[in-house]
Amino acid sequence: MKINATTPKGFRDFLPAEAIKRKFVLEKIIKVFEKFGFDPIETPTLEYAQTLKGKYGAEEKLIYSFKTKGGDEVALKYDLTVPLARVVAQYGPTGAQTLPIPFKRYQVQPAFRGENPQKGRYREFLQCDADIIGVSSPLADAEALALCYEVYKQLGLDIIIKVNDRSLILDVEPKYLAAIDKVNKIGKEGVLKELEEKGLSQNEAVKLFLKIESLKPSENLVEIFSFYEKMGYSKDSLQFDPSLIRGLDYYTGLILEVVLKDDSNSSSLCGGGRYDKLLGKFTGNYLGAVGFAVGVDRTIEAMEENGLLKDLPTKTEVLVTIFSEDLKEKSLEVALRLRSESINTEVWLDPETKLDKQLKYADQKGIPFAIILGPDEVEKDNITLKDLKGGVQETLTFDQAIRRLIKD
Amino acid sequence: MKINATTPKGFRDFLPAEAIKRKFVLEKIIKVFEKFGFDPIETPTLEYAQTLKGKYGAEEKLIYSFKTKGGDEVALKYDLTVPLARVVAQYGPTGAQTLPIPFKRYQVQPAFRGENPQKGRYREFLQCDADIIGVSSPLADAEALALCYEVYKQLGLDIIIKVNDRSLILDVEPKYLAAIDKVNKIGKEGVLKELEEKGLSQNEAVKLFLKIESLKPSENLVEIFSFYEKMGYSKDSLQFDPSLIRGLDYYTGLILEVVLKDDSNSSSLCGGGRYDKLLGKFTGNYLGAVGFAVGVDRTIEAMEENGLLKDLPTKTEVLVTIFSEDLKEKSLEVALRLRSESINTEVWLDPETKLDKQLKYADQKGIPFAIILGPDEVEKDNITLKDLKGGVQETLTFDQAIRRLIKD
Repeated sequence: MKINATTPKGFRDFLPAEAIKRKFVLEKIIKVFEKFGFDPIETPTLEYAQTLKGKYGAEEKLIYSFKTKGGDEVALKYDLTVPLARVVAQYGPTGAQTLPIPFKRYQVQPAFRGENPQKGRYREFLQCDADIIGVSSPLADAEALALCYEVYKQLGLDIIIKVNDRSLILDVEPKYLAAIDKVNKIGKEGVLKELEEKGLSQNEAVKLFLKIESLKPSENLVEIFSFYEKMGYSKDSLQFDPSLIRGLDYYTGLILEVVLKDDSNSSSLCGGGRYDKLLGKFTGNYLGAVGFAVGVDRTIEAMEENGLLKDLPTKTEVLVTIFSEDLKEKSLEVALRLRSESINTEVWLDPETKLDKQLKYADQKGIPFAIILGPDEVEKDNITLKDLKGGVQETLTFDQAIRRLIKD
Repeated sequence: MKINATTPKGFRDFLPAEAIKRKFVLEKIIKVFEKFGFDPIETPTLEYAQTLKGKYGAEEKLIYSFKTKGGDEVALKYDLTVPLARVVAQYGPTGAQTLPIPFKRYQVQPAFRGENPQKGRYREFLQCDADIIGVSSPLADAEALALCYEVYKQLGLDIIIKVNDRSLILDVEPKYLAAIDKVNKIGKEGVLKELEEKGLSQNEAVKLFLKIESLKPSENLVEIFSFYEKMGYSKDSLQFDPSLIRGLDYYTGLILEVVLKDDSNSSSLCGGGRYDKLLGKFTGNYLGAVGFAVGVDRTIEAMEENGLLKDLPTKTEVLVTIFSEDLKEKSLEVALRLRSESINTEVWLDPETKLDKQLKYADQKGIPFAIILGPDEVEKDNITLKDLKGGVQETLTFDQAIRRLIKD
């Protein structure tokens, strides 16, 4: 009986070409995080359900939770921010005291949301967060912006960081803010219509919209912008956007969203802000916090659209074929020598396969070169190197072949 | 109200020192996998429960499964082998045909088991697997052994790979094999006792034990050993052990387990083997498979015991302190210059903190150097570099400081 083999709905497999791309992008991001003095942490996939409850507002219904056979109510991580808050409370000054504050950490792990699957929305997705815990100074907000900009600079994307200050709009009801947040998607008319649907008169809706539109950057933002510049980044990369709201309840000051410079109405690549009250829920004490989460999927998509991700179907540089049963050991020997020169080498492992099938495999897999070791080559201690893209085939000494492979 | 902040029972957090260690070890392992021509894949954390059921024998009860709000029966990955089999069926020759066979993949992702928590047993643990799919030749078994040995060589551990051939013991009942498998833990007497408890007479128990003990390597194993040697590895690193069984049902030929050379009764660091019948359950067709899973926790532990893991509490190389409110911008400027020289640099972000508290933080965090920029330094365009381990403090030009930091 054959079992039905299917990826669960809303989840994804990453085959080599995709997995290699993701690794390539994440390594670049992590290098920037480390350059700014951020250290990694990892937290478990599961948390006690209690840890996550009451943190995400209306989104809470998307949390995956279940009861274990041992009777524990557990839940799959919904984001990396709440587990971070739990970690700081558990190991920081109010806990085991093993975690020095300020704490600058990055974290790259999956999060889970029971969304309706649709293009670009998955039930498991990689989060890639950087946060500064325990600093209230706007210097920390500026560093979060600088780090965020630097990440995208290193990825080769030309971006704008939209910023706002939550404290400017504290007196506006959340349901109205949610409508205003949509201005880039549904336009001014759409927002006004939605405000009326939510209970405002036409007059009140227009007044509220104009009020938000005419907001000026807060003193706090002006100070953050100035530090950002002192950190070596141009103010031109920041854009004050009073209609930027962001959904999550926990933001208290700066909020930020990254968009492509030449497509500023695109959906955001990265978002974050200051959330000074979340950690107190766990620690019992006030502890400032600011950070952001890179949207890994959207960022990779934008890089692809901008031709910034080379096609890297495999990291294997060469396939050593087996010419015939009696010559297979020669192939093993050459593979060993190539690997000792740090060349990523696959050796064919079935002596009964015909050579053309082996070459077809290498080509299909995207391996750039194949090595053929027939009786002529073995007799003269040579190697035939076939360039599978160009189709050219040369007979070389081992050292010549190495130089050719390293150069390429 | 302060929320109770606790890691779920049986799960772990990895704070920076531990997370950095894990990254260091995994990067080394992955480099070897890639040198042998293995490519990465990722599969979701959740699978349909149906995919996992009936694959793990008695261990099945340890699978975490639950029903989603949408009504899907899902389960957390129990290992990486069954999801691999599902992927090969879904995308390989019997499925979407986007996956060339043979398929050599590595995969580093967490797996979940509802074990009773105890020392060294966790409910979530990282699996680090390499497998060769679609090759029946013993060349593939030899390459799995070679890859496994090379991984531990690169990690600096002196190991022995214990090997056996499941086909030698196919006629022995599994419950007796389970007893014999314990010989390194409970000794010959213990095994004989357990065999009797399981229903054999004293005479039969002794006879069975002697029969197993006197087994000779199968022809298949002899061939594998010979290819292993041709691949450049010494037979001395392999040890035929007829009492090696391994729990999982799905092995059909070679089985392997890695132990430390100077402590061959230690629990195994890595295990695997050939499992030629598992993939057929998904694909409907015969497809040979051989591979192994590195036990990441046990391997890291062994490296620590052997002094192979330096204490790396942080990747940050220097903390730029803030001397006083009015000089803070000088600190931002120096941090920018250090980062542009690729030095991992943290800059203090709260201008109101006293200098000695900043230095104490750097020391506590394990950052090796701190930079002090007081009025004297700023006036003369100098930098004071404090070695936090040695305690020495020098006033240098920026270029001298850079050279000093790069050298260290």
